[in-house]
Amino acid sequence: MKPVTISYIARTAGVSVPTVSKVVNGRSGVAAETRARVEALISQYGYRKAGSPQRTNLMELVVDEIEHMWGVEIIRGVQRVVREHRVGLVLTQFGPEPDSLRYWIDDTIARHPDCVVAVAQLSEKEQNQLHARGIPFVVLDPAVEFPENVPFVGATNWAGGRSATRHLIGLGHRDIAMISGPGHLFCQARVDGHRSALQSAGLPPGDVLPAPLTEEGGHTAARELLARPNPPTAVFTGNDLQAVGVYRAARELGLRIPADLSVVGFDDLPIAGMLEPALTTVHQPLTEMAVAATELALALGRGETVSQLGIELATRLVVRSSTTAHPPADLPVPGRPPAGPQP
Amino acid sequence: MKPVTISYIARTAGVSVPTVSKVVNGRSGVAAETRARVEALISQYGYRKAGSPQRTNLMELVVDEIEHMWGVEIIRGVQRVVREHRVGLVLTQFGPEPDSLRYWIDDTIARHPDCVVAVAQLSEKEQNQLHARGIPFVVLDPAVEFPENVPFVGATNWAGGRSATRHLIGLGHRDIAMISGPGHLFCQARVDGHRSALQSAGLPPGDVLPAPLTEEGGHTAARELLARPNPPTAVFTGNDLQAVGVYRAARELGLRIPADLSVVGFDDLPIAGMLEPALTTVHQPLTEMAVAATELALALGRGETVSQLGIELATRLVVRSSTTAHPPADLPVPGRPPAGPQP
Repeated sequence: MKPVTISYIARTAGVSVPTVSKVVNGRSGVAAETRARVEALISQYGYRKAGSPQRTNLMELVVDEIEHMWGVEIIRGVQRVVREHRVGLVLTQFGPEPDSLRYWIDDTIARHPDCVVAVAQLSEKEQNQLHARGIPFVVLDPAVEFPENVPFVGATNWAGGRSATRHLIGLGHRDIAMISGPGHLFCQARVDGHRSALQSAGLPPGDVLPAPLTEEGGHTAARELLARPNPPTAVFTGNDLQAVGVYRAARELGLRIPADLSVVGFDDLPIAGMLEPALTTVHQPLTEMAVAATELALALGRGETVSQLGIELATRLVVRSSTTAHPPADLPVPGRPPAGPQP
Repeated sequence: MKPVTISYIARTAGVSVPTVSKVVNGRSGVAAETRARVEALISQYGYRKAGSPQRTNLMELVVDEIEHMWGVEIIRGVQRVVREHRVGLVLTQFGPEPDSLRYWIDDTIARHPDCVVAVAQLSEKEQNQLHARGIPFVVLDPAVEFPENVPFVGATNWAGGRSATRHLIGLGHRDIAMISGPGHLFCQARVDGHRSALQSAGLPPGDVLPAPLTEEGGHTAARELLARPNPPTAVFTGNDLQAVGVYRAARELGLRIPADLSVVGFDDLPIAGMLEPALTTVHQPLTEMAVAATELALALGRGETVSQLGIELATRLVVRSSTTAHPPADLPVPGRPPAGPQP
């Protein structure tokens, strides 16, 4: 779609050309409602100021939370790229207060970075405001659905979920429960991959219990699953922190991992290898995703045309010590005499 | 000390006033050697441009590494304050390449932030360059000795080390080894606190083994300590990650924690509570330290006079399940008949 002219925008919005110009250049003197209407039209029709914009050599990274351990993996990847390009990284973490969301966009526009990478939910209005200022943005690890023209970098969450459950099925498990995250897009994909693996193997859907992506969330959900009349022999969790909670629940109930319960996580954070037993988990290439998103955003910021606006990087299963065959090879199989020395 | 005039600086450096002015305003046309001499004098005598400098509403956070889990704790604290003050945070991580150190200072000067918080080693030259531009900086968790006029925020590492070892002594341990970090200032303070506790209790110094502040470092050191003819009954580690390595070494050797070996860590990262058994450790208030350093830097950036340039925030011992009495209460004490039902 060819970008339209400023007068077309003005005519469609029912305002004067200078008013549109004020909005594009971030000047005051335009009513909030008019400004929003003009921004929405610019976003829709793709008007761009002629000439290359003034470069500030700044890139903004906005994140919803850095509470989770994976924040470090992302920052590390972003830093690797901005260092190489000698671009300054402005980092904003949306706070728990909803107000902090509101002023961020104003401050960002005032700083006019060359581009934005968002590991956060941007409202449609915020997206429009960035579009209108010609500030390109890339969504990293999208948690919600964005319009199709929004560039993004994610992971193959569906394939990752599928590989986790295929691994458990291959070990002989038939009662496989999943603890999923909340409504995030990437969690839904993991659940669907899990269900797809069960279905391909001709198995019933199994229990899927939503829980927060925290240790506590995993703990509470595991306690509930393991208290059921026919508890699962294996649990696939929405992330590694939930798996830590499953470990705790298993200990409290006197269940051994993996002998009594196999566990598969998701993310492959450094903690996964430190657990006892070391956690089998789906590796999510967070650092590489951050590298790709930053490269993409900087290229868009330089005004380059890129061939591919959305990509998913491959996950891979890392098998460690928290999963084993079911029934265990050293346990007696029903109907056969127990192994060991005979009288 | 009263700041001197620009002509005094020029006279002392043997250059013209316009040359000093060029250096102060970051303009080109001054030989590198002359520039460095002028900067060193400005740093020494404290010359400051008259009038309040142009504020950019940017603050720089520079860190050596975000590899360690505590990076998130620090960023969280900094974000809390910059959000409140609506200041943009530029985050730079010095890369593994030594070159990345060099260009950082040039880019920072070009951005002219209101202030800098450094969780990194700044060379004397870099410190001078910041001084000369009137960009105040605060060192967070100093790893090396800085000049006395450099503002800093740290933790009471000496007291923390002392409380860890006092706790172990109170439990009856007499053979207490320490795995310390490398030469960092904060690690030395922890070691000295540990030794002070031993000395106060009239105990010999005990083994202190330096190792990298990683899981692997703790593992290797623990394997060495536990293979000695008289292995320690308790180990105090330089940080929590080393403690994870001690746990692994103990498992490999068939030693139970805490029954056979008590372990105390340092930092109290989220992982400490997730370990099995949960780790007794010295809580370091990283987020609060970051908050204090950011508040201090922003105040200096606003040109405010602050009453206190250096502070250490208190650590506190968090007793969990990795430490127990020695000898254990339920083991027979030599010379007495074993407890339990008598024939």
